[in-house]
Amino acid sequence: MSLPLPRPPQTKSQPDGRSRQSKQEGKSEPNRRSAVPANPPPIGVFDSGIGGLTVASALRNLLPAENIFYIGDTARVPYGGKSQQTIERYSVEITGLLLAEQAKMIVVACNTASALAIPRLQEILKVPVIGVIEPGAKAAVEASLTGRIGVIGTRATVYSRAYERAIQALNPEAQVISQACPMLVPLIEEGWLDDPITDQIIRRYLAKFIKANIDTLVLGCTHYPLLSNAIRKFTGSHVNLVDSAQNCAVAVKKLLAEDAIAAPKKNIGKLRVALTDKSDGFLRVAEEALALQVGDIEVRTVQK
Amino acid sequence: MSLPLPRPPQTKSQPDGRSRQSKQEGKSEPNRRSAVPANPPPIGVFDSGIGGLTVASALRNLLPAENIFYIGDTARVPYGGKSQQTIERYSVEITGLLLAEQAKMIVVACNTASALAIPRLQEILKVPVIGVIEPGAKAAVEASLTGRIGVIGTRATVYSRAYERAIQALNPEAQVISQACPMLVPLIEEGWLDDPITDQIIRRYLAKFIKANIDTLVLGCTHYPLLSNAIRKFTGSHVNLVDSAQNCAVAVKKLLAEDAIAAPKKNIGKLRVALTDKSDGFLRVAEEALALQVGDIEVRTVQK
Repeated sequence: MSLPLPRPPQTKSQPDGRSRQSKQEGKSEPNRRSAVPANPPPIGVFDSGIGGLTVASALRNLLPAENIFYIGDTARVPYGGKSQQTIERYSVEITGLLLAEQAKMIVVACNTASALAIPRLQEILKVPVIGVIEPGAKAAVEASLTGRIGVIGTRATVYSRAYERAIQALNPEAQVISQACPMLVPLIEEGWLDDPITDQIIRRYLAKFIKANIDTLVLGCTHYPLLSNAIRKFTGSHVNLVDSAQNCAVAVKKLLAEDAIAAPKKNIGKLRVALTDKSDGFLRVAEEALALQVGDIEVRTVQK
Repeated sequence: MSLPLPRPPQTKSQPDGRSRQSKQEGKSEPNRRSAVPANPPPIGVFDSGIGGLTVASALRNLLPAENIFYIGDTARVPYGGKSQQTIERYSVEITGLLLAEQAKMIVVACNTASALAIPRLQEILKVPVIGVIEPGAKAAVEASLTGRIGVIGTRATVYSRAYERAIQALNPEAQVISQACPMLVPLIEEGWLDDPITDQIIRRYLAKFIKANIDTLVLGCTHYPLLSNAIRKFTGSHVNLVDSAQNCAVAVKKLLAEDAIAAPKKNIGKLRVALTDKSDGFLRVAEEALALQVGDIEVRTVQK
């Protein structure tokens, strides 16, 4: 998985730095202003930390014309052990920063915030809001033959029962078994991805899924795909591992088309990344494990 | 370890709820106003979370006349992986809440904030500020016969080298070896205190201390005393384990006397506890493991 670095636009620039529009490009978008805007509004993406870059990466691959503005709330990470009220407040605040960047839609690339804050965001925002729970639930239902589906996530995600509701809305016969795994994110941030200690912790958390004979396991936290190998060692290859990033990107593409808010196809999308705290801990692990090149990181303060 | 529950004052109350002062009590404090104030200003104590209650407990035991107002910044816990700038900002904000409660001094019952934010707090505040690093360093230097001292803590605490500086200021010959142990707090919060997985993680983090033949180990995080048994299993009983709570309380007592700001001796101190997020995760573990009875918890929002 890799994130392209921001590249300079390929259109020629006027001396004032704004791009000049060729006739041909103008013709390709008859229902819009004839010029490709110098900077079409971005898709706003947020996560409690760095993990949501997996979603940003999937969006970049599927929607290369889209600008993406990503904010990781590293000053207050993790969300997974906090209360619904606090998670809602943080989500509203971070969304405010994205709207200040002219975000045309909000992608909640954090399972905890998706589970607990999306109703509130949808209540107060006019721009569309998409999370990772429903795409993940859809992928799980499509992947499962037996309807026995496991879900792992943070305490807040699992206690919210959001995946259970979303899966059973699609397949009322599905049996959903959940397990909060609060040790997994610290293990990933420590970089112990291929490690006997990690294997033992996974065995402890996942034992009940084997007993219950699941055929599909939802990785209900954006960090968890980094442990796919370790998890597969325990579950065996007959259990489908579902992560939401790819399915979330597909849902975003559909929504951009439905609402006619996609960027002009000729646009060369850019990724900007901001964090609320420039802590280097996990960024180093993410860069190595995901082969991410996130370029310059901006730092934004939520409250002055 | 136990925290006494707030008890009703033993002085008789007027119908309006304020305490009435006996003559005798007035005489015992000739240089003060003759009445014991109904509610002498508290010692303000803060931590990133619940762990600092060990310090509050030591203060209660040593200074039963003092009121204590404790705030745990559970909405933004943990501090240990965040940047100095963010840790300073959080510490200043939480201190503001304590000052709003008329705190007469600030006790930073968090090793990370003690390591990184005390200079800033002392720069801006007129009330005295005491942390846990210097008392812990003093205790370690007094306990060590060989001068070979180990320190464990969060990433931020260890990278700050605050313990190293404080120990070497007291004993320039001391050899200090440090190890960041970011998995220990999650293990404690998961409640895996007596557990083979915890033993393995401790063995990995602490192996270098055994090689270096330390005779004293500073538990540089308020959570770690909960793992004393597991740590002692690995180090053996000849290594002194130093935690700062008791020594911090002694330093507070000394400062209260020097600055003549101790509560009247007849006062019956109370403990109030506020958290910035009412998440129940670790509170349950703390109540069990520390036999804590913290009573009603107030919830305070840092920013409106």
